[in-house]
Amino acid sequence: MKIGLITIGAELLNGTRTDTNASWIGQSVESTGASINWHMTVNDNYDSIINSLDNVPIDIKIVLCTGGLGPTHDDITPSVLYKYFNDKPLFDQKYWTTLKEKFKTRGIEISESNKSQAMIPQNGKIIPNPIGSARGLHFKNNNFQLFSMPGVPSEMKLMMNNYILPIIDKKTQKKIYVKLIRTTGIMESSIFDIIEPYLNNNNISLAFLPSFTGVDLRISSNINDDLIIFLDKILPLLSKYYYADDHIELEDVLGEVIINKKKTISTAESCTGGLISNRLTNTPKSSSYFKGGIIAYSNSIKIKLLNVNQEIINKYGAVSKEVALEMAQGIRKRMNVDIGLSTTGIAGPGGGSKDKPIGLVYIGLSTSNFEKVFKFNFSKNRKTNKLMTSQAALNILRNYLND
Amino acid sequence: MKIGLITIGAELLNGTRTDTNASWIGQSVESTGASINWHMTVNDNYDSIINSLDNVPIDIKIVLCTGGLGPTHDDITPSVLYKYFNDKPLFDQKYWTTLKEKFKTRGIEISESNKSQAMIPQNGKIIPNPIGSARGLHFKNNNFQLFSMPGVPSEMKLMMNNYILPIIDKKTQKKIYVKLIRTTGIMESSIFDIIEPYLNNNNISLAFLPSFTGVDLRISSNINDDLIIFLDKILPLLSKYYYADDHIELEDVLGEVIINKKKTISTAESCTGGLISNRLTNTPKSSSYFKGGIIAYSNSIKIKLLNVNQEIINKYGAVSKEVALEMAQGIRKRMNVDIGLSTTGIAGPGGGSKDKPIGLVYIGLSTSNFEKVFKFNFSKNRKTNKLMTSQAALNILRNYLND
Repeated sequence: MKIGLITIGAELLNGTRTDTNASWIGQSVESTGASINWHMTVNDNYDSIINSLDNVPIDIKIVLCTGGLGPTHDDITPSVLYKYFNDKPLFDQKYWTTLKEKFKTRGIEISESNKSQAMIPQNGKIIPNPIGSARGLHFKNNNFQLFSMPGVPSEMKLMMNNYILPIIDKKTQKKIYVKLIRTTGIMESSIFDIIEPYLNNNNISLAFLPSFTGVDLRISSNINDDLIIFLDKILPLLSKYYYADDHIELEDVLGEVIINKKKTISTAESCTGGLISNRLTNTPKSSSYFKGGIIAYSNSIKIKLLNVNQEIINKYGAVSKEVALEMAQGIRKRMNVDIGLSTTGIAGPGGGSKDKPIGLVYIGLSTSNFEKVFKFNFSKNRKTNKLMTSQAALNILRNYLND
Repeated sequence: MKIGLITIGAELLNGTRTDTNASWIGQSVESTGASINWHMTVNDNYDSIINSLDNVPIDIKIVLCTGGLGPTHDDITPSVLYKYFNDKPLFDQKYWTTLKEKFKTRGIEISESNKSQAMIPQNGKIIPNPIGSARGLHFKNNNFQLFSMPGVPSEMKLMMNNYILPIIDKKTQKKIYVKLIRTTGIMESSIFDIIEPYLNNNNISLAFLPSFTGVDLRISSNINDDLIIFLDKILPLLSKYYYADDHIELEDVLGEVIINKKKTISTAESCTGGLISNRLTNTPKSSSYFKGGIIAYSNSIKIKLLNVNQEIINKYGAVSKEVALEMAQGIRKRMNVDIGLSTTGIAGPGGGSKDKPIGLVYIGLSTSNFEKVFKFNFSKNRKTNKLMTSQAALNILRNYLND
């Protein structure tokens, strides 16, 4: 089933905000087997909204709409919709009382302008908002039905999950089965070479979605069994690179592996500056296996806290295989953990030389019976370099634990 | 001047990717005084692209277009555009030779499918791509001119900056002057109360853009002097909260302040798990003032490396004012720096109690002659809590240094 989307807000067109609602809605609609086939982003003024409604394609029977439901004068979506759907707003005394009490509990004085949020349509319906004051609106005419939601992501998501997705779900006849396969450490073209022999089923659609942290594969089919058979064939061939399904992060997958293997870890970060430990601690249970880390941004701290040999730094430089190894050993012993993970590199924008260009990174891994240093040449952009290094380090640890 | 935008790609509609190109384009177009007034997101198939081109509003004379210029069979944008603009693709032997050599240097075998990227229009123009193989296309008909760019952000941005924005800039007559003011630590409604007395100029437009790290104010005017006068009035009133213009990050502003004050800093992080040091080291010159940090995720590390008193932990708990202070003192002395900054809190999802609910955070600051601990109740969502805590900690440091 084809679904339309209208996202309302000058901040989306002038780029002050990135439209993350659209991608969330796209994914959640697809999970029902329907799909967003038409999407307009419009300014929050009468003409622009009317124009988008007039242009909804004939084959679209459901339109989702976000934004413009706030209490201030520039939130004009409701008045446009009442007019377009030939409906009439009535004052909802009961909701106004509830709203006043809610504000009082929070110690905030309610403004008269909030009264605009206490209106209900005569013919249309109200979509409840369990966490905010702006309720959604549900209208219908001969061409399509429309669901209007606030632009606040948490409020929009609750309305989608509680009210709108169940309606879409009921109407969807032809299901689409989708799997997102996340890989890291392998190029798009190399993945293609590996899986090409199995790309002989016309029911399977495949898209490559590369980013700095790896290539995601989006595989879809209208026959679930075909999708499962295809995945069973290709996933074992990608095991070193394939780390998760859907939008799960590498650190979350890694966390499960570490817990299963009953290991403890610590990090000694130079070029990544805390990004690896930050990612590790995004995972709820991380305090059970991550004991802590040291960000050794200066040589003196590498020497003092990680026990790196001053002579090794003098001889090979702080960005070297040798120092990466001593950092990993040092943090493992200092923190008394099973595994030490280290990074040292030149993240840019300065600090490069002919022998050691910007982007050069060493990642060290140390356990009581295994030690290895990995060398990379990543991006010369500082933030990208940090991101790529953290991703590689986490995947090195994942592969070590799985071996 | 009104400009249209068509972003092409199934991954945008099904939500596998968030459209960050659109917000970048929105901002960069606005910097010329023009604005994106119409934006459609469409699937990469013939009918959808043609439909969007047919629907370009009459008052739009420039259309920007991203996506679908890759070498594979599903990249159909060029063939649709050649047809729509009644143009003819010619084989560009010279570019094909260049492309082959480029691939050879990188050690990659070129595919015959890349030949589609070596075509040039008979009437239209080519937009050079300094870093990728897909060149852009520039067509014109009686209604509008269209610029087609790749979806890869870095390539799109270069084409915008080098080729397209200069053209838009020349055509823009009525300039819009925009300032984005970034604040943190103050609510939308409180900002409104402070600046309301100065909101008496009809030439000034104001939008509030709240997020977890603070409220951005987007202030615009068609008269630059009016904008400057308004800013001169309100900014001094917000100085404790106002940290930057435009899209500059707090850590970058803070870095300048630290350099000016000739201070060195270190961090002792518990609940933020490395996020503060990660943000500090996103700033290029950070190695001159940030000496390193310790992520003390376990009590034993707080005691061993930060010299926190075991009895203090027993008496007050690891999440307490007392421990935050000892952590800040401990890291300052351990790293031999001017300023120690610490965090300890309950980031969730577990670990809360009645006395110490999830979300409770202490931030400690220690210098040789000043010490203070700040208490907050932030989000109960783990990642949001970390983000809010890091933002508050960086702003505490900024305010301390500016006082």
